[in-house]
Amino acid sequence: MDKKKIGVLLSGCGVFDGTEIHESVLTLLFIDQAGAEAVCFAPDIDQAHVINHLTQQEEKETRNVLVESARIARGEIQSINDVDVAKLDAVILPGGFGAAKNLSEFAFKGPQGEVNKDVAALLEKVIEAKKPLGALCIAPATVGMALKDKSPELTIGCEEGIIGALESIGVKHALCKVDEIAVDEKNRIVTSPAYMIGPGIADVAKGIKKLVEKVIEMTQ
Amino acid sequence: MDKKKIGVLLSGCGVFDGTEIHESVLTLLFIDQAGAEAVCFAPDIDQAHVINHLTQQEEKETRNVLVESARIARGEIQSINDVDVAKLDAVILPGGFGAAKNLSEFAFKGPQGEVNKDVAALLEKVIEAKKPLGALCIAPATVGMALKDKSPELTIGCEEGIIGALESIGVKHALCKVDEIAVDEKNRIVTSPAYMIGPGIADVAKGIKKLVEKVIEMTQ
Repeated sequence: MDKKKIGVLLSGCGVFDGTEIHESVLTLLFIDQAGAEAVCFAPDIDQAHVINHLTQQEEKETRNVLVESARIARGEIQSINDVDVAKLDAVILPGGFGAAKNLSEFAFKGPQGEVNKDVAALLEKVIEAKKPLGALCIAPATVGMALKDKSPELTIGCEEGIIGALESIGVKHALCKVDEIAVDEKNRIVTSPAYMIGPGIADVAKGIKKLVEKVIEMTQ
Repeated sequence: MDKKKIGVLLSGCGVFDGTEIHESVLTLLFIDQAGAEAVCFAPDIDQAHVINHLTQQEEKETRNVLVESARIARGEIQSINDVDVAKLDAVILPGGFGAAKNLSEFAFKGPQGEVNKDVAALLEKVIEAKKPLGALCIAPATVGMALKDKSPELTIGCEEGIIGALESIGVKHALCKVDEIAVDEKNRIVTSPAYMIGPGIADVAKGIKKLVEKVIEMTQ
């Protein structure tokens, strides 16, 4: 039997301006351990900005989301524009600020910001095709913005400001611990708070493992 | 009881010019799962070069090893110059070309190249203090160069050219599968081939888990 193909939408490389690296790698690990195949992709656009992860200061520099995401994917990555959703069985978005800075404007403008149009189109296609969609950490914010017309039920940690912002656009919030997942059966969306709660990598690994296994189970 | 403190020596962020991201994250995961604490550090120096991980071409750009390593460590990292080996129970070096380009010149000049002097001094101190030392993938090349006077026994994958280069300076080579570790009991060095063999993340995770658990066991 062919392996299930699980799309992994990356948004750079590093928690403060890109994809959260631990969450991405753990997603790739659990996909491989489940006998499925990860298909990594990212938008071929400039990052919203570049943050020095030692000082947390913004640098006067430009980096490309696809090129930096390729570091996590060891070069095995494609542009989101080349992705054929029909060839994927599911899609997962790891977190990190990149998911709310490069895939949408949530981190800068809240839920009234724009979602990157290629990301929005891809998420719409996944949902329309009834394929399962997973999102970790802050990534459910971008999912909620893109799919607000579906009134999705998501978890996004426990910061009241963020929960309220998403509820204001019609998202239903499900409170989860770090080792739990929220499952929106109607829309087939699975979310877990990961580093929105943390605190450690072994903690977030528990929820990410459950999420990946649930997403793959839902492809059956 | 205080947690064991396991130093993790990073060399950038990305397999082609820095630390191998999967190997680093898995090292951090297994340290946390074992109830120990990771202490990340890296040299505060420019990378040997910057490789675009999408095209594998060299970029006209300068990046700092410590600053880029901070992406993997989520900002929780220090300069190798600030590390007090007396406060660590062990040290592990993940792989990636950074370990053979930024920590030493092995990738450019073979075993006759130099080892970064701060890295060499740290490795000497670890060995002199009889603390266990772990190294993954290509990182054993740099360990072998730094500690050649100890005739260390290491594994470095199965490429004859690399094995021969290390044997030429007095390293004893132990052939290992990806899910195996080589243990040099005399020098207290543990190595595993990881992505020198691969091929997938679930494969390398097996050897890395064994390595981390063995290193922590040796701190008892």
